Amino acid sequence: MDRSGDAVDVRVQRSKAAVLAKTYELLTSGGIGGVSIDEVSRRSGVAKTTIYRHWPSRAALLVEACSTIGTAPPVPDTGSFGADLAALTEELAEQLRSARWAAVLPSIVDAAEREPELAGLHADLHARLMAPFGAVTERARARGELAADREPADVTAAIAGPLFYRRWFSREPLDAAFVQRVVEDALGQLSVRPHSP
Amino acid sequence: MDRSGDAVDVRVQRSKAAVLAKTYELLTSGGIGGVSIDEVSRRSGVAKTTIYRHWPSRAALLVEACSTIGTAPPVPDTGSFGADLAALTEELAEQLRSARWAAVLPSIVDAAEREPELAGLHADLHARLMAPFGAVTERARARGELAADREPADVTAAIAGPLFYRRWFSREPLDAAFVQRVVEDALGQLSVRPHSP
Repeated sequence: MDRSGDAVDVRVQRSKAAVLAKTYELLTSGGIGGVSIDEVSRRSGVAKTTIYRHWPSRAALLVEACSTIGTAPPVPDTGSFGADLAALTEELAEQLRSARWAAVLPSIVDAAEREPELAGLHADLHARLMAPFGAVTERARARGELAADREPADVTAAIAGPLFYRRWFSREPLDAAFVQRVVEDALGQLSVRPHSP
Repeated sequence: MDRSGDAVDVRVQRSKAAVLAKTYELLTSGGIGGVSIDEVSRRSGVAKTTIYRHWPSRAALLVEACSTIGTAPPVPDTGSFGADLAALTEELAEQLRSARWAAVLPSIVDAAEREPELAGLHADLHARLMAPFGAVTERARARGELAADREPADVTAAIAGPLFYRRWFSREPLDAAFVQRVVEDALGQLSVRPHSP
């Protein structure tokens, strides 16, 4: 009895893994719009009724498949706000140039505009990707390096804003000189200046 | 002969207009992913073969339908870079809060990631929306108000970057105080400072 129960469990786990893998594959090749339960079923060989037994909706399946997209970079700890911010920004630029999530995110942003369930997915992914900026900025604030009238959210907007703008909107190259200017501009406006009283 | 030719022309114009109107309607309600020739044909009552006679592809139809999306704001001319930039940025923020193109653009950005024909559409739309910033910045440069080592593209990234970031990525409100900080930060870094030598 136990043995056949185990065998069923293994089969269930295997088909869930196949469904998630094919969902992820469709997502990274065609964006969220490219994922349908029909297509996932066809490619994974798992029946639609079985898919719906594990995930009540396409959105639920997408939420689980997306939970592995976009790993936040580790939080640097160089001892200074400027060096931490430069390291994080360079890593973000590198991910925007080459990571798979960078090609998928616009489809998630679009889905968030019209599907409330997917707006939650977007919010989670965004929070995960931006968390290291919050950590570095809070530490800088504790050390008195952040200008008193500034919020951590201003730092993320000043850094991620111009980078995202170039990657997805103006589609100009994210070269090292641009990335450096973005960091210097953000620090120039948001950090306590060395020559401040 | 002429009369019946005119009648045919009128009919052709009428069905083209119906197709474009329904394409635009689908586009603004469901994004680019919501537009299919099947659905446009069903809603407009124009046969698919007729649609394909006027537009060889879905992309060609989308390009024409999108040509009316997103009207650039008029170029302000207050006499100073700071006031021009503030006026344009406030107008952009207002459009991001309420204009239809703001809900559609992410789907166009997503399409541009994977369909070369639609990347052209995206580039045209983006250039149209950002043109006033270029005009204002070039005028500021001619008057010596732009820092010598700065490019007009840095100004657009510094303004549109944080605004777009808030609208589509962090989904925080684009309140007046934030918009004002973005303008002040951009001017602080990119314009020639009053106290410069």
